[in-house]
Amino acid sequence: MVNPALSQFGTTMSRLTGVRAIMADIIATLRAGQGQKFLNFSSGNPLVLPEVEQLWKEYTTKLLASQEYGEVVGRYGSSQGYQPFIDAVLNDFNSRYGLSLSDRNILITPGSQSIYFYAANAFGGYTDSQVLKKIVLPLSPDYTGYGGVSLVPEAVVAYKPTLEIDEEAHRFKYCPDFNQLVIDESTGCVIFSRPCNPTGNVISVDEVKKIAHQASGYDVPVFVDAAYAPPYPGLNFVEMEPVFGDNIVHCLSLSKAGLPGERIGIAIGDEGIIEVLQAFQTNMCIHSPRYGQAIATYAINSGALAEISTQVIRPFYQNKFSILESTLEKVLPKNLPWFLHRFEGAIFAWLWLKDLPMTDWEFYQKLKEVGVIVVPGSSFFPGLREEWVHKQECIRISLTASDEDIREGMERLAKMIISIF
Amino acid sequence: MVNPALSQFGTTMSRLTGVRAIMADIIATLRAGQGQKFLNFSSGNPLVLPEVEQLWKEYTTKLLASQEYGEVVGRYGSSQGYQPFIDAVLNDFNSRYGLSLSDRNILITPGSQSIYFYAANAFGGYTDSQVLKKIVLPLSPDYTGYGGVSLVPEAVVAYKPTLEIDEEAHRFKYCPDFNQLVIDESTGCVIFSRPCNPTGNVISVDEVKKIAHQASGYDVPVFVDAAYAPPYPGLNFVEMEPVFGDNIVHCLSLSKAGLPGERIGIAIGDEGIIEVLQAFQTNMCIHSPRYGQAIATYAINSGALAEISTQVIRPFYQNKFSILESTLEKVLPKNLPWFLHRFEGAIFAWLWLKDLPMTDWEFYQKLKEVGVIVVPGSSFFPGLREEWVHKQECIRISLTASDEDIREGMERLAKMIISIF
Repeated sequence: MVNPALSQFGTTMSRLTGVRAIMADIIATLRAGQGQKFLNFSSGNPLVLPEVEQLWKEYTTKLLASQEYGEVVGRYGSSQGYQPFIDAVLNDFNSRYGLSLSDRNILITPGSQSIYFYAANAFGGYTDSQVLKKIVLPLSPDYTGYGGVSLVPEAVVAYKPTLEIDEEAHRFKYCPDFNQLVIDESTGCVIFSRPCNPTGNVISVDEVKKIAHQASGYDVPVFVDAAYAPPYPGLNFVEMEPVFGDNIVHCLSLSKAGLPGERIGIAIGDEGIIEVLQAFQTNMCIHSPRYGQAIATYAINSGALAEISTQVIRPFYQNKFSILESTLEKVLPKNLPWFLHRFEGAIFAWLWLKDLPMTDWEFYQKLKEVGVIVVPGSSFFPGLREEWVHKQECIRISLTASDEDIREGMERLAKMIISIF
Repeated sequence: MVNPALSQFGTTMSRLTGVRAIMADIIATLRAGQGQKFLNFSSGNPLVLPEVEQLWKEYTTKLLASQEYGEVVGRYGSSQGYQPFIDAVLNDFNSRYGLSLSDRNILITPGSQSIYFYAANAFGGYTDSQVLKKIVLPLSPDYTGYGGVSLVPEAVVAYKPTLEIDEEAHRFKYCPDFNQLVIDESTGCVIFSRPCNPTGNVISVDEVKKIAHQASGYDVPVFVDAAYAPPYPGLNFVEMEPVFGDNIVHCLSLSKAGLPGERIGIAIGDEGIIEVLQAFQTNMCIHSPRYGQAIATYAINSGALAEISTQVIRPFYQNKFSILESTLEKVLPKNLPWFLHRFEGAIFAWLWLKDLPMTDWEFYQKLKEVGVIVVPGSSFFPGLREEWVHKQECIRISLTASDEDIREGMERLAKMIISIF
């Protein structure tokens, strides 16, 4: 057994943050509970939808029959990405959103998490003169993975939101608090997801523009994580348009459009920013996998990817949420302080239990006792260091279970809520 | 145009080091020379061999027809890798080399360069108490990419080799200089390639063991870059066996076995070391692409990958080298001080021109004038800071050109050598 010393970064990067730390407990629970049937609402792993699988199979068959096959698979490529794929994204975005992107505005990465890793460390962290440049998350809670991408964890700073609460309807929504939010010369970059994992929030166009404007005064790039956004995978349940701008880097992922296994991220933005990210990638891993890029080229050029997103993927998860929502409405008493976050996008429900008489972690343990697994919400506040009881009052419920399991699970959840309040 | 400030790491990682810096010049040369036919010996990009392409097509067809397809492509996987692929590597290595690896000894990465990135930064660089842990390259020249993987460039330290010279035969070979090599408590990790890109060197089993033994006294992991080694791609032209040991991490790549486009690296080693690398990967990019892992599972389990490596890939490049060697023997005068490195592996020839009356960079420019592109050797000494005229006396010649181009190119090269000496 070797016991090598770790560098500072080694120590930081061997820590599993957020949800990943909880996954170990969930896996242990599932293993220990052999025989017991758990209703598992913890997974962020999308389901394989038959129509979507069929689409990727068809285009793989097409790739196999094409002249390009050897070039795609058997050769190293440009670190920027597979050119036909870059062109497909470029043409689609230009025609769809009236942009005038050139191919220098696009970088393909091995999954979109890599974009945030490059960004967090190229723009955030310490400068040559040892000034700390912050990675600002303007709206907390947000994606748990942002907690792990910086080599300098103290650089990640999140801001407490304001809450729009509809007491009567038992709904609420987080909003960026512009009275608190600081973006200035101490900021390296800004990152947020829209639609938001875990809450399903879609912040407004005005809010995005306000953040981008504030950042632009300091030449700060703003990375908008559009992993659930239109045009693919189109997991928005309210009208939303991507927002573009000089300092906005629009970041796509094909993971929720049926290709999570293949790791495809796409960064669209200013040429200078893209160049920095690309050089980082060249040094780190040369280039992104090309199998998926090649088949996605067909799927974007034909329009099939955007179509299947709105025709199949979106209604599938919308239906899951409806089942969850109507079950909770039926079984949760009106007089208890439960609040479901407005479902505007993504594949999760986010439930706030105001004045929960225990921590979210204890509540998570309680739910395991009745065979229900959710994710305690406190995992989703990376960078928010201040005490705030709300951080321990939420849970994330994945919409990837079967309809029947959602009904049954929400009933058990409601019973537990009633029993402890 | 946005002009964001870069962090220290941003500055470091936007620098393109080694060969990558020269690639820009080569691309510009090729573009400017429209019409002029260049004989290009700069590429490290393997050729697509029809038999190899056929193999990957067959297994893709098999994957398409299998029940696993949806699970492979349409779902996130474990950050360690696709389990059937891990098992395939495990079984193959255990039976081939009499090992007793468990699945905790293996990590799959998006290309093997990522392994060196994780290793260089998890074990090398500054500790919490600001001590610099070095990334030691025991034999210089070595792979140019090692120059770019550390976020702390001053951590990369290489050692000048001793030279075994056969004056009569115009051959030479680099050997690690154990009188100089320092591996001690200031060392974070050791990295070297075997077979070596760019020289084709295969250091001996005794030398590997000596390095590993020295490192083991300080719990220092030794990463052996086996991107050209047996069993796949089997690009060794002398007998060689992989060396395993407690602190040795054996690092494979499927890039030279026909899958460079798909990015598959494999680290095999101590469980504790693998865990550190895996956590780094989880935080950075979640997991590796699974398309290639799935088809490579078939290719390893059937034995076809190892077989095609020795039956097709190896003889192909061996033949290329023979043509290069016999041409140079014929056209280079016996009385000039040229020395070809012993061709023991990989896909390059490495030529040392002792007392070259100009720098390697100037010589590279001269060769462009006669339509020949090689890579100046000075790009391949990352971490070797001392002055050494030898660093400017070598060129790397890729074996990926056509037979005819190799003959013609070597003739032009010889003429140029004769004209300047």
